Amino acid sequence: MGEHTVSSFDQDLEHIDKLIREMSDLAASMVRDAIRALLHTDAAAAQRIISEDAVMDAKQREIDDSAITLIAKRQPMAQDLRAVLGAIRMAGDLERIGDLAKNVAKRVGAVGEGSTPRGLSHGIDDMATLVLAQIKGVIAAYAARKPEDLRTLRVDDEKIDLKYTSVFRELLTYMMEDPRNITACTHLLFCAKNLERIGDHMTNIAENAYYVLTGSQLPANRPKQDETATTVLAE
Amino acid sequence: MGEHTVSSFDQDLEHIDKLIREMSDLAASMVRDAIRALLHTDAAAAQRIISEDAVMDAKQREIDDSAITLIAKRQPMAQDLRAVLGAIRMAGDLERIGDLAKNVAKRVGAVGEGSTPRGLSHGIDDMATLVLAQIKGVIAAYAARKPEDLRTLRVDDEKIDLKYTSVFRELLTYMMEDPRNITACTHLLFCAKNLERIGDHMTNIAENAYYVLTGSQLPANRPKQDETATTVLAE
Repeated sequence: MGEHTVSSFDQDLEHIDKLIREMSDLAASMVRDAIRALLHTDAAAAQRIISEDAVMDAKQREIDDSAITLIAKRQPMAQDLRAVLGAIRMAGDLERIGDLAKNVAKRVGAVGEGSTPRGLSHGIDDMATLVLAQIKGVIAAYAARKPEDLRTLRVDDEKIDLKYTSVFRELLTYMMEDPRNITACTHLLFCAKNLERIGDHMTNIAENAYYVLTGSQLPANRPKQDETATTVLAE
Repeated sequence: MGEHTVSSFDQDLEHIDKLIREMSDLAASMVRDAIRALLHTDAAAAQRIISEDAVMDAKQREIDDSAITLIAKRQPMAQDLRAVLGAIRMAGDLERIGDLAKNVAKRVGAVGEGSTPRGLSHGIDDMATLVLAQIKGVIAAYAARKPEDLRTLRVDDEKIDLKYTSVFRELLTYMMEDPRNITACTHLLFCAKNLERIGDHMTNIAENAYYVLTGSQLPANRPKQDETATTVLAE
């Protein structure tokens, strides 16, 4: 932790870290369960995930309150202040991941009513696998205080973006082949987009976690590989 | 500003407010220009908006730095600290609005290559009008320090959500009618979704602005009116 040895400040920050790890674990299980509910049209599981979002919101508020108390009580210097703000930001990104998992869960019914081609499930499942590996990797690197791992993990978001681009193209193709696929595929498109956004939030978290651990910023933004905004299929 | 009269703290917060107003103005013009570029297939304007996003990012960093300096220098009490954190959050939401406007601008080419039915332009244009009114209203209420206006404005996000639901249904219908519409309509769907998300960010901003001005939270979340996650069209 740099210049100061174990202090009350570090102990307070450790409490916030613990809350962040709890939010991270919940975020990972919400994403995993939401994709599972989506691919198996499990309405009961979807409902459970939707209700878990309130737990995420409550934990974020707890982190915010702890952070405010910590700053007011300890009056930390600029560098330590930044670490606390980094923690507040991480909690903000985790809360957004909970929202995005909830949004996938909400689409379970609408996708289930259509006919979902097998191949599409695979693409989304592959994206989810990459996203979950990213969440677990970042949590583990942060818990083990390994900033170099965070630097490496940040680059992995490219794989998610590339997979998203291929799922996007596949979904458009299915829609063009048969208009009966359009409703389900549109909802799957938003689910895939949500997974891609979860990847972006994990990139933010990796960057903030690196900052909290080291006090330094990771070098400038990695290039974005999501090319779907300019994707046009031959018609 | 509650219990304390004009102080150095208030002057520093005023500087942050000024930066937030600048970000708000830029966010409003980016959204307006992005929708205009989309509806007129104006690639040059789109490119300009994409480059403006860097200005937003720089202003957000400036607000973050000013906020850290303010906290470290003035060591404010809990209530004032919350106001500063509220300002940091407002800057975060404005930065995301810049990202979303940039994402609309990036889709200008992909939409332009398809055939965009007239009716759809109207729906998206109407959404943009509501979103811009929301941005301007919230900026004005914050600048004039009128928290009650912020409370009223927050409710207006429902109108954006309802419009989004109708644009969503319309876009699905066009896709089903003619597969040649699918690519352009998919990109328009994401543009409409981006506008809906901008509305959500403005809701966050209204809530944080209210907090910064009054020191109190607005009552519990208004209900969400975006019903598209469960929208299924008869096929």
